[in-house]
Amino acid sequence: MRLRHKPWAREELSKRPAIVVQDPTTQKGNWNDLFNNDNPIYVEVGTGKGQFLTKMGMAHPGINFIGVERYESVLLTAMENVEQAGLMNVKLLSEDVGDIEEFFGESEVERVFINFTDPWPKTRHAKRRLTHPYYLEKYRRMLTNNGEIHFKTDNQGLFEYSLHSMSSYGMAFKNVSLDLHKSNMEGNMMTEYEEKFSAKGDRIYRLEATY
Amino acid sequence: MRLRHKPWAREELSKRPAIVVQDPTTQKGNWNDLFNNDNPIYVEVGTGKGQFLTKMGMAHPGINFIGVERYESVLLTAMENVEQAGLMNVKLLSEDVGDIEEFFGESEVERVFINFTDPWPKTRHAKRRLTHPYYLEKYRRMLTNNGEIHFKTDNQGLFEYSLHSMSSYGMAFKNVSLDLHKSNMEGNMMTEYEEKFSAKGDRIYRLEATY
Ligand SMILES: C[S@@+](CC[C@H](N)C(=O)[O-])C[C@H]1O[C@@H](n2cnc3c(N)ncnc32)[C@H](O)[C@@H]1O
Ligand SMILES: C[S@@+](CC[C@H](N)C(=O)[O-])C[C@H]1O[C@@H](n2cnc3c(N)ncnc32)[C@H](O)[C@@H]1O
Repeated sequence: MRLRHKPWAREELSKRPAIVVQDPTTQKGNWNDLFNNDNPIYVEVGTGKGQFLTKMGMAHPGINFIGVERYESVLLTAMENVEQAGLMNVKLLSEDVGDIEEFFGESEVERVFINFTDPWPKTRHAKRRLTHPYYLEKYRRMLTNNGEIHFKTDNQGLFEYSLHSMSSYGMAFKNVSLDLHKSNMEGNMMTEYEEKFSAKGDRIYRLEATY
Repeated sequence: MRLRHKPWAREELSKRPAIVVQDPTTQKGNWNDLFNNDNPIYVEVGTGKGQFLTKMGMAHPGINFIGVERYESVLLTAMENVEQAGLMNVKLLSEDVGDIEEFFGESEVERVFINFTDPWPKTRHAKRRLTHPYYLEKYRRMLTNNGEIHFKTDNQGLFEYSLHSMSSYGMAFKNVSLDLHKSNMEGNMMTEYEEKFSAKGDRIYRLEATY
């Protein structure tokens, strides 16, 4: 993701504390209080510009969505999208997914979305992939018993790796699609990257996984 | 697989008992005696005309191969291939894979190959797929602790289903390839179906799985 230098991004993000939660560690275990309801919580890791989360938030008012994105300038666009849509059920965290355990209590989340995450193709960078066991362990702790991971990507190598890493972690797959846009999946929400890659004719791979 | 009517096939198969084992139930637990060595045993289910097994037998003289195929007329071609290659380490069974427990003892086999098996796309036929839990259970019993299943297919739907069925059975995947002929896998032996489908430009999917 190319980043223009935006020194003012952090300041802007702090101006909408109802959308960009300022100290998420204090919410750990208490997210439903913040949303002021008992609806399920779905987390997206590596949210980018927030198109997916904004569309999901609009389509599913009975779900609380939280997006985690570490690049402030990118998250700023997500913030603007959420604000324009006037959504109360979408929050954003300007944070690194590596710290996610500090933000969510055990069994606090029902679903984790991983959309078009950076593939990190070099083996020595495998630990940075958001489907590495290092992250699978973090998701497991915060997910409910029947919690699910929904993962999609255009990157064949990352998908192959994730089939390995997740199944080796003991996870089971369902609704696997090796060509999502030619499948009969209903209600798919396209992310920014998904629109770009599928327009090029690239296949989109998708799976749902449980622990 | 189109079958010409070959009433003489059964008789022909019985003429080469050193290749087509006549009563495999009597070998259960004793295959190494028949091969007269202690080499590992690899089984292919749905062998077809035997191109894969013949090439594997030639390339790996230190492995014992056993192919299981239920259509006699098809197996006849496999028999001829094995005979022409003069292979002592390849045996064939004119049997249904559904009966495979009757032929192999517990932990007698180190690897099971499933190559381009019939996809049975209708849900109500799922139980006939050779990667259905019904079969996974049979393979598990005959495989050693570190035993592996090596599966390849051109059929996207069957591969998607198998990722689901195998992972739900607790199996872990490695060396997954979603486009085998563009990958860097070494030593791949093409089956008849693989040659046909890859010549058409179809992708070949492959995985290795352990219990
Ligand atoms: C390739 S983009 C995809 C964005 C969006 N999900 C989509 O599908 O269009 C990946 C995003 O994940 C973010 N990301 C990657 N690793 C992260 C991490 N450890 N913590 C937070 N964000 C991360 C990147 O900053 C980037 O914005
Ligand atoms: C599509 S062909 C593929 C043949 C070969 N493996 C290849 O890749 O070229 C599938 C073969 O599996 C055999 N087969 C399918 N189900 C079987 C079963 N339950 N028992 C024995 N053979 C079976 C069929 O008879 C057929 O010859």
